[in-house]
Amino acid sequence: MQRRGAGIGSTGPIVLASGSTARRKLLAAAGLTVKLEPHGVDERALERSLSQPTPRRVAAALAAAKAVAVSRRLPDATVIGADQTLDLDGRTLSKPADRVAAARQLRALSGRTHTLHAAFAIASGGRVLARQTRSARLTMRKLSVAEIDAYLDAAGAAATASVGAYQLEGTGIRLFERIDGDYFTILGLPMLPLLTTLRKLGRIAP
Amino acid sequence: MQRRGAGIGSTGPIVLASGSTARRKLLAAAGLTVKLEPHGVDERALERSLSQPTPRRVAAALAAAKAVAVSRRLPDATVIGADQTLDLDGRTLSKPADRVAAARQLRALSGRTHTLHAAFAIASGGRVLARQTRSARLTMRKLSVAEIDAYLDAAGAAATASVGAYQLEGTGIRLFERIDGDYFTILGLPMLPLLTTLRKLGRIAP
Repeated sequence: MQRRGAGIGSTGPIVLASGSTARRKLLAAAGLTVKLEPHGVDERALERSLSQPTPRRVAAALAAAKAVAVSRRLPDATVIGADQTLDLDGRTLSKPADRVAAARQLRALSGRTHTLHAAFAIASGGRVLARQTRSARLTMRKLSVAEIDAYLDAAGAAATASVGAYQLEGTGIRLFERIDGDYFTILGLPMLPLLTTLRKLGRIAP
Repeated sequence: MQRRGAGIGSTGPIVLASGSTARRKLLAAAGLTVKLEPHGVDERALERSLSQPTPRRVAAALAAAKAVAVSRRLPDATVIGADQTLDLDGRTLSKPADRVAAARQLRALSGRTHTLHAAFAIASGGRVLARQTRSARLTMRKLSVAEIDAYLDAAGAAATASVGAYQLEGTGIRLFERIDGDYFTILGLPMLPLLTTLRKLGRIAP
């Protein structure tokens, strides 16, 4: 999974190729200070360019594209790119644009099992040095229209801030009857393999 | 797992038989307002009174004892009792008293797999209505004395605030190489089965 390459061993900063404060918070909680850098990748265009755009491949390709885009601008940095997709029977669901879209998404997920794929890629000198994708499976309770409405009232902006219209660290937990998989994968950044990789690359001690 | 009984169907408050702000925060994040009530249970005495004090049984017995103790005082309330134990090859490890004890605990856990058991019990009218225990397995990296020291410096008070001398939601994540199990079980309160049970008992909507 990992190749050592140019740039690693450098003492440049660790950069997150993202505007995601949620991911930065996860890294900060683990004691890692990272800078946020917008990646400028046209995500939908990249998705369309893939020959087999399965939800898992989309997450992996986007994480790599984001890391490489920022790494080209900041070749001395260690750049983390990340992406998460929601997989409902092979179909990719995107972050809902508004409350109406969030309600539609929750109706689609109600009473069914879906998969979240969370990918990261680490780039330096414009090249991907390491990448990994993890998946978690979640089963939502069968929700009535009234329950979805009450949930959206309670969740507020959180409902449109994530791919599944829920946040497990908040009231979103009430939507589920079963969860199989790593919590950090569900939050959008597989922290354990990421930390292991950064350690092997010599970017965090020891 | 569940029996309906006196007190359920009441509109009394939901009470957490604990002084644990961590557990209250988990419940609050899920949108549940609970009151904290000290349980007054002598945990070590109860542990000694068990005929087979395996770590899993200790967690279950303590959760039930805490719920019942508070429920006797507040018979109209729905009382949640909770406990968590750390199981290292069948031996129960307790919350470390100080930094020296935390370092000793981390040396014992280093390079090995341990289990966390998290139990809850729901009582009303002085009786247990429902209870459940969940377990998660965690494998710690092999840590040098210097790494343990650096971790304890970074973690500060968090190191003595939990049974394993680590908090996964903070820098504790850096100690691990593998985690199998539910995040909420690791945090000390299996939220999904707890919410399902409260829902079935008619204590949370719907």
